[in-house]
Amino acid sequence: MSHTIAEKAKLTARVRRLKGQMEAVERALETEVPCGEILNLVASVRGAVNGLMGELIEDHIRMHVVDPDKDGDADRAQGAAELIDVVRTYLK
Amino acid sequence: MSHTIAEKAKLTARVRRLKGQMEAVERALETEVPCGEILNLVASVRGAVNGLMGELIEDHIRMHVVDPDKDGDADRAQGAAELIDVVRTYLK
Amino acid sequence: MSHTIAEKAKLTARVRRLKGQMEAVERALETEVPCGEILNLVASVRGAVNGLMGELIEDHIRMHVVDPDKDGDADRAQGAAELIDVVRTYLK
Amino acid sequence: MSHTIAEKAKLTARVRRLKGQMEAVERALETEVPCGEILNLVASVRGAVNGLMGELIEDHIRMHVVDPDKDGDADRAQGAAELIDVVRTYLK
Repeated sequence: MSHTIAEKAKLTARVRRLKGQMEAVERALETEVPCGEILNLVASVRGAVNGLMGELIEDHIRMHVVDPDKDGDADRAQGAAELIDVVRTYLK
Repeated sequence: MSHTIAEKAKLTARVRRLKGQMEAVERALETEVPCGEILNLVASVRGAVNGLMGELIEDHIRMHVVDPDKDGDADRAQGAAELIDVVRTYLK
Repeated sequence: MSHTIAEKAKLTARVRRLKGQMEAVERALETEVPCGEILNLVASVRGAVNGLMGELIEDHIRMHVVDPDKDGDADRAQGAAELIDVVRTYLK
Repeated sequence: MSHTIAEKAKLTARVRRLKGQMEAVERALETEVPCGEILNLVASVRGAVNGLMGELIEDHIRMHVVDPDKDGDADRAQGAAELIDVVRTYLK
């Protein structure tokens, strides 16, 4: 995944944390912890998946489309910066 | 998790499938598959988490609040049925 | 809409505010304001729609299913309170 | 809004339809139609807002960042095409 070579360690850590959260849900189902707690665990997983998605999309824009901090075309750089802003807002 | 005793096997299978999907994302990051594929994998994870959340909420309503198929109070049963409909639409 | 007689004024005000936000988007399109601003306006609309949806679902639970503050059955009241919590978290 | 000069009529029509949907919600609240119907109306509004958001983001990418159908840089064009795919999947 070329756009994440630089950030690979960070993303991998994030994915492993998510896997750990899924394992916590699995254990919670097995040990029959109260339903409300499981719902909260899964809501956290959902937030974490959205956060990961947002980070992947931002990386993708920077590495494979236009990096607003590096592109020589000022209009395109601004367009990419606005796009990243909206991705962050949308997926927060 | 009392509301899922009946459905426990089904939910556990679903959570394990999700964990498998997370492992696929982890491998994809490690083997540097193309970025677009990883984005698609994570989008699928997100869909699966939403589906799990919807099923857990529906189970919770049926087991801990009001089961529309069993409640003797017709108005309350209808209210619960409408609520389940909206959860299904909202989290699809 | 029976579950909102009490809250009708509050909900109507909220819906009107949303309509006003849609009109702002319409004007922004017509006067060709910068794209980034329109994206932000529509992101705000989306947040407001989610907030309205969350409030309607919570009202529906309280009025048509189980009101956790009034139900005599302690387990069911707790189940409804947990459900409202998850709706609030999920739609925030 | 420069990125929508071409598509302005289409987007404006979409926003007006949304405003009409909000007015339907307002009337539904005023005439006290059943709660379940109002929930469905607002769920439709939410879907329409997501659709509008997706279209605006796609237009923004094409007009202000990289148009995959026109860009001379093949890698960047592919990156933008993948990004548009993920936006469509994500906001459907």
